[in-house]
Amino acid sequence: MRMVDLIIKKREGQELTDEEIRFWISGYVKGEIPDYQSSAMQMAIVFQGMNNREIATLTDAMLHSGETLDLSMLKGVKVDKHSTGGVGDKTSLVLGPMVAACGATLAKMSGRGLGHTGGTLDKLESIPGVTIAISGDRFVNQVNEIGCAIVGQTGSLVPADKKMYALRDVTGTVESIPLIAASVMSKKLASGSDAILLDVTVGEGAFMKNVEQARKLAHIMVDIGKRLNRNTKAVLSNMSEPLGKAVGNSLEVKEAIDALQGHGPEDLMELCYSAGAIMLEQANCYKTIKEARAALEEVIRNGQAFDRFVKMVKAQGGDIEYILHPEKFEMAKVILPIYADEAGYVKELNALTIGVSSMKLGGGRETLDDVIDMSAGIVLNKKVGDQVAKGELLATLYTNKPASVYEPIAEEVKNTFVICQEKVEHQPVILEVIE
Amino acid sequence: MRMVDLIIKKREGQELTDEEIRFWISGYVKGEIPDYQSSAMQMAIVFQGMNNREIATLTDAMLHSGETLDLSMLKGVKVDKHSTGGVGDKTSLVLGPMVAACGATLAKMSGRGLGHTGGTLDKLESIPGVTIAISGDRFVNQVNEIGCAIVGQTGSLVPADKKMYALRDVTGTVESIPLIAASVMSKKLASGSDAILLDVTVGEGAFMKNVEQARKLAHIMVDIGKRLNRNTKAVLSNMSEPLGKAVGNSLEVKEAIDALQGHGPEDLMELCYSAGAIMLEQANCYKTIKEARAALEEVIRNGQAFDRFVKMVKAQGGDIEYILHPEKFEMAKVILPIYADEAGYVKELNALTIGVSSMKLGGGRETLDDVIDMSAGIVLNKKVGDQVAKGELLATLYTNKPASVYEPIAEEVKNTFVICQEKVEHQPVILEVIE
Repeated sequence: MRMVDLIIKKREGQELTDEEIRFWISGYVKGEIPDYQSSAMQMAIVFQGMNNREIATLTDAMLHSGETLDLSMLKGVKVDKHSTGGVGDKTSLVLGPMVAACGATLAKMSGRGLGHTGGTLDKLESIPGVTIAISGDRFVNQVNEIGCAIVGQTGSLVPADKKMYALRDVTGTVESIPLIAASVMSKKLASGSDAILLDVTVGEGAFMKNVEQARKLAHIMVDIGKRLNRNTKAVLSNMSEPLGKAVGNSLEVKEAIDALQGHGPEDLMELCYSAGAIMLEQANCYKTIKEARAALEEVIRNGQAFDRFVKMVKAQGGDIEYILHPEKFEMAKVILPIYADEAGYVKELNALTIGVSSMKLGGGRETLDDVIDMSAGIVLNKKVGDQVAKGELLATLYTNKPASVYEPIAEEVKNTFVICQEKVEHQPVILEVIE
Repeated sequence: MRMVDLIIKKREGQELTDEEIRFWISGYVKGEIPDYQSSAMQMAIVFQGMNNREIATLTDAMLHSGETLDLSMLKGVKVDKHSTGGVGDKTSLVLGPMVAACGATLAKMSGRGLGHTGGTLDKLESIPGVTIAISGDRFVNQVNEIGCAIVGQTGSLVPADKKMYALRDVTGTVESIPLIAASVMSKKLASGSDAILLDVTVGEGAFMKNVEQARKLAHIMVDIGKRLNRNTKAVLSNMSEPLGKAVGNSLEVKEAIDALQGHGPEDLMELCYSAGAIMLEQANCYKTIKEARAALEEVIRNGQAFDRFVKMVKAQGGDIEYILHPEKFEMAKVILPIYADEAGYVKELNALTIGVSSMKLGGGRETLDDVIDMSAGIVLNKKVGDQVAKGELLATLYTNKPASVYEPIAEEVKNTFVICQEKVEHQPVILEVIE
C-alpha cells in the first residue's frame, strides 16, 4: 500500500477502506508517512469529505494511536461533556459540580483557550493554587469522593490527534467536519467515559457558523459514538452572542460561582439545566429529563452543587477563600465602562468580536506561547433582546494594557452592540437536541 | 504574510495576488516554507485552480528561483520544442536535425522517461558514447556549428520546479493543469529560447486524456508564453495509440534514423513536417507554413537532415557507426512475435498498455532509480486503421527478461489490439494547432 495512491483515491472522491485509513494513521504516528503526505490527504478530505463509516474508522484509528484511559475503577456510570468552543463558555465549571451533586460521575479532561475561544483549564487555573495536572490514584480518589474532577489531558492519550491538529493548524485544514469530528471524538472516547454529551456551539463565536453545519457535525459525532459503543447525544447551543455575561478567566469563574449559588445569567442557567438533565438521564441517575431537571434545580437551591465545586477546587489544591469570597480575586488596573449612545433594544452582539476583544485586552492567547492575564476580559451588562436607555451601561472592559491598546477595543466593543428601535426577542440558548 | 492564510485563501477559491505567489515560491525554495504547507497549497490548487494571471506569475516566480540561460551568444532565432510526453515519441530526435538543416537554431534541454512515457535523453544515450552532459563553450560551439544540440537540464535551472515536482509526485498533486503548465513553461522559459512550440499529447498514453483538457492546457501555456514575451504556439497531437511503430530506446533511435532517411512511419513524418513548419515560421526562417514544409521535405529527401543528426551525435561523443549501420545496435536476447488470432481491422491500440508493457520488458523506469535496458521494447507492425489477416504479425516484443515476466506481457499486448470487422480510418496525428 502506498500513501500517494490513497491520497489520489480520496482526491478523486472515492471512499477509503478501513485498512487504508488505519495504514495512514498508524504510519503517520510512527513517522513512516511524512507530514507533507498527511497534509495533502487532509486537504483532499476538506474538499471530498468522508462518509460516516470512514469517519468512525478514522476516529478509532486515532483513538488507538496511544493509550486509552480505563475508568472502570470509578464508581457508577461515567459521563463526559464536551463543547466545541465559544466565548464566555464556563458551562463545565458549573455543570460538573451540578451533575456530581445529583449522583453522576464526571472525570473530565479539558483544554486551553486559543484565539477568541476560552479554555476551561485556563479558567480553573485563575483560582490561586489550583492544579490541573492530577493523575493516577489522586485522580481516582477525587472522582470517587467528590464525583467530579476537571484536569488536563495526559500526554499519552491520542498522539495522532496532537500531531494531526498541529499540522491542520498550519496547513489550512482545520475547517473540515470529518476531521473536526474525528479529533473531538477520539479524545472523548480515549478518556474512557461511558456516556458523552456534546455541546455543539453555533454562530459567529463558534467553529460552526450556521445551524445546518452544526447539525451535520453533531449527527456525525453522535453516529461515531454509537458505532464505537458509547451512549452519545448532542445539543446545539447558541454562540452568536457570548454565553452568560462574563468573558475572561477570573471574571468567568466569578460568574460560575454566582451560577452555582443560583444567581447566574438566564442563558447559562438554562444550558446547565438542559444539558445536565440529558447527562443525568444518560448516566441512568434519573429516568426522565423532567425528574433530572428538578434534581438539578434542587442542588442549586440547597447549595449542594456549590459545595461540590468548593470540594473540587480544594481537592485540586485551590484556595477556597477565593470561592467563598470572590471579591478577593485580583482586579485589573483599568476598568472601563462603555455606555450606550442611543436608546432601543440590543439586536446583535457579535460573539467573535467580544472574544477577540477580550483576547486583545490580555484575557486570551493569540499564539500558544502567549501568557494570559487572568483578570482581563469583558463583562456584558446587556445582551440581545435587552432594552437599553441612552447613556446606560452596555459593558465593562477589564485590562492591564495601555490606553493605546484598549481605546480602539472599547470602540469596537461599543460598535458590536447593534441597537434598534423595535422590540427584539431574547435568543434561545438550546437550539436543538440530537440523539 | 503567513503561508497558512494563503492556503486558506486558495482553499476558499479566491485568487492569490502576485506578491502572495512569489512569497510562496521564494519561501519554499529557500526552505522557509515547509513541504507540508506547499503540498496543502498544491492540493488546494488541484481543486480550486488558478486563473491565467496567477499561472503566469507562478511560472515567472519558478523561472526566477534559479539561474536562467542566456542564449544570446547563439546565432539566429532560437526555437525550442516540448512534448508533454507519450509512448514512442522520438519526435525531437528527428525534428531537431530537420529544423537545423533548414536554418533554425535548436538548443534543447530534454528529460528522462518515467513510468509508461519515454524520455529523449534516454533514447539518445542508447547510442554508444553519446553524452547529454555538455555545457559552456562546447554547447555554444556545437549549436553554432551544427544548429542543434539535445542535452540534459543543468542543475541550477528552475530549482523550484525540481522541488515542487518531487513533492507533487508523492502527494497526489501531479494532475493539475495550472501546476503542469507552470512546470513545463518555467523550464522552457529558463532555457532561453526565443520561440517555443508545445506538443500537447492527448489520449490514453498522455497526461491529458481528452481533447478538452489538452486544449485547455495548451491555451494556458500559450498564454503564459505570451505574457512572458515569448513567441509560443502549440499543437495537440494524438497519443491514444503510440507515435510511430517503435517503443523502447534503441528501437526508437533506429526508427528515428529511418525517418531521417525518409522511411519513417506516416504519423511520425506528418508530426515532424507539421510541427517543424510551425517552428521554422516562428524562427522567421520561412514566411509561410507551406514554404517551410516544402523545405523540410527537401532536407529529408537530400539527406541534409540525416547529415545534421550524424554531426550532432558525433559532436556529443557518439559512435556514428551505429547511425550509419543501425544493425550494429545490440539486440535483445528474446524476440517474441505476436500474431493476430483473427482477421479484420485494428480498431484500438492502447498507448498506455503498450507504454507500460515496454517498461516492464525493461525498456523504461518504474522508479527514478531503475536502470533501463536500452534494447528492450516493442515494435508494432499494425496500427489503428490497418487491415490484419489471421495469423499476421501484430507486434514484436524485445526483452532480456525471463519468460515468467514476458509471457503475461505478450498476452496483454495481444489483447490491447482490438480487431473489428468494419473498415476503420487511420487516426490523424495533429488534432489542432493553437496560437
